[in-house]
Amino acid sequence: MPIEVLERAQSELTDWRGSGMSVMEVSHRGKDFVACAADAETRLRRVMGISDDYAVLFIQGGATGQFAAVPMNLTLPGDRISLVNTGQWSTKAKKEAAALGLDVQVVADEAASRYTTTPGPGSFAAAEGSQYLHYTPNETIGGVEFGYVPDVGVPLVADASSTILSRPIDVDRFGLIYAGTQKNMGPAGMAVVIVRRDLIGRARPGTPSIFDYAKMADSDSMLNTPPTFSIYLLGLILDWVENLGGLEAMGTVNKDKSDALYQFIDRSPFYSNPVAPTARSWMNVTFLLARPELDKQFVTEAADAGLANLAGHRSVGGMRASIYNAMPIEGVLTLIDFMDDFAARHG
Amino acid sequence: MPIEVLERAQSELTDWRGSGMSVMEVSHRGKDFVACAADAETRLRRVMGISDDYAVLFIQGGATGQFAAVPMNLTLPGDRISLVNTGQWSTKAKKEAAALGLDVQVVADEAASRYTTTPGPGSFAAAEGSQYLHYTPNETIGGVEFGYVPDVGVPLVADASSTILSRPIDVDRFGLIYAGTQKNMGPAGMAVVIVRRDLIGRARPGTPSIFDYAKMADSDSMLNTPPTFSIYLLGLILDWVENLGGLEAMGTVNKDKSDALYQFIDRSPFYSNPVAPTARSWMNVTFLLARPELDKQFVTEAADAGLANLAGHRSVGGMRASIYNAMPIEGVLTLIDFMDDFAARHG
Repeated sequence: MPIEVLERAQSELTDWRGSGMSVMEVSHRGKDFVACAADAETRLRRVMGISDDYAVLFIQGGATGQFAAVPMNLTLPGDRISLVNTGQWSTKAKKEAAALGLDVQVVADEAASRYTTTPGPGSFAAAEGSQYLHYTPNETIGGVEFGYVPDVGVPLVADASSTILSRPIDVDRFGLIYAGTQKNMGPAGMAVVIVRRDLIGRARPGTPSIFDYAKMADSDSMLNTPPTFSIYLLGLILDWVENLGGLEAMGTVNKDKSDALYQFIDRSPFYSNPVAPTARSWMNVTFLLARPELDKQFVTEAADAGLANLAGHRSVGGMRASIYNAMPIEGVLTLIDFMDDFAARHG
Repeated sequence: MPIEVLERAQSELTDWRGSGMSVMEVSHRGKDFVACAADAETRLRRVMGISDDYAVLFIQGGATGQFAAVPMNLTLPGDRISLVNTGQWSTKAKKEAAALGLDVQVVADEAASRYTTTPGPGSFAAAEGSQYLHYTPNETIGGVEFGYVPDVGVPLVADASSTILSRPIDVDRFGLIYAGTQKNMGPAGMAVVIVRRDLIGRARPGTPSIFDYAKMADSDSMLNTPPTFSIYLLGLILDWVENLGGLEAMGTVNKDKSDALYQFIDRSPFYSNPVAPTARSWMNVTFLLARPELDKQFVTEAADAGLANLAGHRSVGGMRASIYNAMPIEGVLTLIDFMDDFAARHG
């Protein structure tokens, strides 16, 4: 999270807006918190360009909760959906949809490249009769990201957890966008769901109320006590994004950050990145050391230098630099300096 | 929340345990956070006396999420359950269970008293063939609380959201206890589920993974990214409870707090409490003014005096003092002084 946001949250933690209470303690039905939640929604609509054709919902349970909630709201058992498989997150979404009785047609599958590619524009379409097509614009583990929005002829559903707010997005191209908040929108514990209103109101019988988009939309996401602290922090983060110039500016910075890192890696004989250039993520930059036996030492020395969490996911090994919005360009340059020095000593 | 806990969270908000990061930012799979979550569970087990026969789960979605999750984990459609209806929360639990296809037998219903009573010990039992009996030990709106644990012959399921940690509890009497965290366990956004292990592993097909007790138990509640800040704060609150002497001490303080308020109300000609003496809540003390036309003025003047959130629920009117664990006896005495003064001016 941006340090400016954390410091503001810290300064207000025991006395929010002169209430004498923490924002975690005020009534979620009181006018101050209702205004706080409305402000977060308004800012999100402004920053992302979300029209009134879409509802914006704040739902507990993160993206994994939405793996179930999306099928429960948009399909009946036996329905068909299409899915693009670009890595572990797509695979998890697929598994949960199948467990809910769906016929999941994988219309593009990047397993053969070991998830180092994304399918190109026009290379896939929804299978006939699909209720929607699900894809994962950014996969954190492989470090692959779509550089474009697919055109698929059915409502497009995106798990945007690890790319939301990182660059401009044309919301009108989507039927539904959901995102766990813990990458670019605050702490873990909530998902933001942006759903076209005509898709709402068809939840299966037995859908848990807190996952029912119609009930959540009708109650302004306050069917039950909402995660007030998460909503408050989302508002602060959106304020920070707006002050930096919105998604255009975020996109420029994020491209610069990832470009710097990829260029360094590509020029280095010691480091390599296995991802196809068109599929490289702006958020998760993976790289391999020429001498994998030094992986542990690299992680340890990096941590000592204040560069945390660089080990790649255990399923793929190697390294991964997650450079979400809160990471300034200076952090990336520090990482490059460290990598350069490490390579000089061990290359 | 206790001010001591808030102040500690504030002091650590930008640098948790020397990590240079917020606890909201560290990896939930890293050893520091894994230890933090394990510590919260260990403390909860110690404070509540939870044996290893029970799993302790941290699940997003609050108690309302559990209204669905409990039936999904313990029943199949068409199954029968029994339920005691003591107010709005019981009614909501009933509605969600019925929507999940259950035959819900209401074996005690306090609607006739306008929810100012609880059924006495031995006055009800589970209907034949019930998978479990659900009740709400404390109802926040009516301000009624069970002073005893029912003996019902089938697994007893309790929504303990508004009473957990307020007094000693004999966990072994229960099949399952769940509680939203936002009363006595921290901010909104999480439920704690304490479930006897032999009841785990029977989730219906199509149960969302994040609600599946077996999957959550197998993954130490880290099937997906857990609400890290909520778990961290729960640990701090449990530390606070232990330092004060545990649940015995909490129970003594809470009884003293509510006794003081009820005694003042009972002795006053201006205030009254409609709840049967044996059913009076230690957490939510409701009261009526002799002149209801002064309700608004009472709330406004109280707020000006620093006494917030005293309006009763809109469904019942009147006043309600929610005196959860974090409210010290001094706060109750201040309220009594204010009430006394208000009555003197308007009685």
